[in-house]
Amino acid sequence: MNASLPFQWFARFATLLWMFAVAGWIVAPASAQTAPTDSALVRAIFDEVLAHGEAHENLRVLCKDIGHRLSGSPSADQAIEWGRQVLQASGADTAYVMPVTVPSWTRGDVAEASATLPGQEAQELRITALGGSVATPGEDWLEGPLLVVKHLDALDTLDATGHIVLFNRPMDPLLINTGAAYGGAWDQRGRGAIAAAKAGAKGVLVRSLTHALDTVPHTGAMGYEDGITRIPAAAVSTVDASMLARAVASAPERGEEVRVSYRMNCQDLGEVVQGNVVGEWRGTERPDEIITLGGHLDSWDIGEGAHDDGSGIVHTIEALRALNAVGYAPRRTLRFVLFINEENGNRGGKEYARVAGEEHEAGLRHVAAMESDAGGFVPRGVRMDATDDPVALVRSWADMLEPYNLHYFGRGGSGVDIGPLKELEPRPVLVGLVPDGQRYFDFHHTSQDVWENVHKRELELGAATCAALVALLDRHLPSP
Amino acid sequence: MNASLPFQWFARFATLLWMFAVAGWIVAPASAQTAPTDSALVRAIFDEVLAHGEAHENLRVLCKDIGHRLSGSPSADQAIEWGRQVLQASGADTAYVMPVTVPSWTRGDVAEASATLPGQEAQELRITALGGSVATPGEDWLEGPLLVVKHLDALDTLDATGHIVLFNRPMDPLLINTGAAYGGAWDQRGRGAIAAAKAGAKGVLVRSLTHALDTVPHTGAMGYEDGITRIPAAAVSTVDASMLARAVASAPERGEEVRVSYRMNCQDLGEVVQGNVVGEWRGTERPDEIITLGGHLDSWDIGEGAHDDGSGIVHTIEALRALNAVGYAPRRTLRFVLFINEENGNRGGKEYARVAGEEHEAGLRHVAAMESDAGGFVPRGVRMDATDDPVALVRSWADMLEPYNLHYFGRGGSGVDIGPLKELEPRPVLVGLVPDGQRYFDFHHTSQDVWENVHKRELELGAATCAALVALLDRHLPSP
Repeated sequence: MNASLPFQWFARFATLLWMFAVAGWIVAPASAQTAPTDSALVRAIFDEVLAHGEAHENLRVLCKDIGHRLSGSPSADQAIEWGRQVLQASGADTAYVMPVTVPSWTRGDVAEASATLPGQEAQELRITALGGSVATPGEDWLEGPLLVVKHLDALDTLDATGHIVLFNRPMDPLLINTGAAYGGAWDQRGRGAIAAAKAGAKGVLVRSLTHALDTVPHTGAMGYEDGITRIPAAAVSTVDASMLARAVASAPERGEEVRVSYRMNCQDLGEVVQGNVVGEWRGTERPDEIITLGGHLDSWDIGEGAHDDGSGIVHTIEALRALNAVGYAPRRTLRFVLFINEENGNRGGKEYARVAGEEHEAGLRHVAAMESDAGGFVPRGVRMDATDDPVALVRSWADMLEPYNLHYFGRGGSGVDIGPLKELEPRPVLVGLVPDGQRYFDFHHTSQDVWENVHKRELELGAATCAALVALLDRHLPSP
Repeated sequence: MNASLPFQWFARFATLLWMFAVAGWIVAPASAQTAPTDSALVRAIFDEVLAHGEAHENLRVLCKDIGHRLSGSPSADQAIEWGRQVLQASGADTAYVMPVTVPSWTRGDVAEASATLPGQEAQELRITALGGSVATPGEDWLEGPLLVVKHLDALDTLDATGHIVLFNRPMDPLLINTGAAYGGAWDQRGRGAIAAAKAGAKGVLVRSLTHALDTVPHTGAMGYEDGITRIPAAAVSTVDASMLARAVASAPERGEEVRVSYRMNCQDLGEVVQGNVVGEWRGTERPDEIITLGGHLDSWDIGEGAHDDGSGIVHTIEALRALNAVGYAPRRTLRFVLFINEENGNRGGKEYARVAGEEHEAGLRHVAAMESDAGGFVPRGVRMDATDDPVALVRSWADMLEPYNLHYFGRGGSGVDIGPLKELEPRPVLVGLVPDGQRYFDFHHTSQDVWENVHKRELELGAATCAALVALLDRHLPSP
């Protein structure tokens, strides 16, 4: 027996002890700091938002204390300062306003209309000016016989001189996707004034863009064309549009006309400087790579812009708050952006992309952007403007997201505000939240788009979905 | 050249002509009658319902002209006769009433409550009797100190003698499935009066079963147990329940009690005979095999039972109408059933299954049954109580149903009315419609469950989903 044996044995034992100790020391803190699995992270985000969510209360403040907030208006200024403060308080390292020059237009306080059907007393029509419309000449009554068409090109072969044109093509009820039905009817509002003026009309009415048959007129952006007379344009409720179309269809038999009269004092006020609000949370591993989540802070100037897009705004703020609350450590720099002027110009989205282009040159790269601008309804999933690989990556999360009733992972139509980021090369992955759309156009651009019509849990599920998707993109998107 | 050749040639030609004519005669009607592909059939059903749907108007009549319709009430009789007529008019070969003896209970016209907090004036509580409760003794005020617990078994170790117990466990907000959250809190309403009485309490209040924090009490079925004192049971609004719990939690510090007082004059009226309404459409190939679609015609006696379950009733009627309108020829016999007494006894479902058992012996076999009793909200898919093969069959339609936003094909919980059919052997495939559930418990069993809170397109999508599923089951389920 060698005398050194006990020592060797002891030495080996001591070494083993030391190794265990070191291993324990390494493993213990590492274990405490180990990032949760994707699945646990998503569950934690949903739990946080459903148990301690602030989105519904934030939306109440935005809708009730500030109200609607059209670009250029004083209430939009108020919303911008509110948004900066809330982003800061919700965990941003820094929150700032990126200046954007926006158009300013006011609806005025007069939008009245009436129709005279053959052999009847004049009856009131429910109208509202389309956004960007000129007033009726002299802010006085504009009166004339009504010509009803369903398609813009119907006017190619009609002389509408002296007439007021009503575009009356309903949104297609057979399309399950209400956004597609909206897109299919949108030309009447967007380009109807141009087509009507080309045919000689002195005014234009547009059937409200909604599946609902009700008495609520829906506003929204419309356009003019240089060299074509700018005629006053208004939305008319679907009930009134249907009534007018029936009356015109039967009027010729009696050899009489349906006549319409309306006046509006809306006005172009030029341009002012407002801005996008940006809340930035710096990345721990790749701070020079950026993932953006946003909605638009501006709204139309009727109702409260609760679904469009107050919901996207509080989704964005809540995603920041919840990711902080669950202890998420972002790898990339996350930006939470409240865009300005989506409704009538998209100047906010364009300016954000212009600045992102400059940053890009300087080595700050957008790898992804997500947008919530389809309402505060129960989420269904996302739409992506992206190449096959990131689409496949997002779809690989389908089983994990299924317990949250997220099932839709389609392509295209990610959003208006993040759309201009498509110009960057390499192009960031663009993602749009897809809430259920059946109710959206009941409220869209109307007096009914108010806080009371947003459901707390549905709003929260949307916020949690945004937060989860941003975190998963941050974790798994490869660097460009 | 053979003299007979022209004749032979003519004979052959004539034969060919005849064959073509016969083929044409066979082919032409066959072609006109060729069954559409599954995909085309589903599309035709959705188009029919979205373009010409009558579900929303039928629901208006049921809710506004008839109103709520608790089993045993005269309005339930009215609803039964209305249902029979509408099923007949919607394409049933025959529509009849299957007699069912149902319990009759009346809420009465008094349900008042107040709470006295230490050092404060008495304040009103918003309560409503739970269905089946006894009145307060002598229909007089019942008064006592309040004991608040969250779980039934908390009373195992508490003496509640002389107290009024409030069960105050909220529905779990973290469960995405609101039905599961309801199920997790339901014992308080269903068995709270038994547990409280066992512990000596003289009355019981139950926190309303809803995620919403509001002032609307939710009724619903409750039970007593033979040999245990029957104490009066009422639902209290979530706002009031939360206030009471806070008050009790802080009261002991001041050495004072929270006291509650309430009175109700609800009453058990015995039993009466009403019935299930059955509309039958005989099958063309296997008339002795039956597929049933149904909802329940009875409702609680506050509100209008619009989501629960007026929606299931008009889904059922609309499915019959739409399948007729698109020219569907059912292989099996389809039954469209308006069940009675789902809310407080399920006597309708049990009697239907008992009769189905007799029919079964006589060779008339139920191969499937589908139920809609989860509201008129946008559909997500279906739940199935079935063996692996039919579940796999239904899941094989997922891609075809995806354009209609149907994505959920889960197991379990098909429905209360069709549940008793599980006793048949071989067991029919049981399917339950799954609408989105986030809003359901805002309205469930309350004054707010009215027609105005049902969305026309969402209701229609549910009806089309029922019709499509019934047709697909009819086409593809193998015979037992």
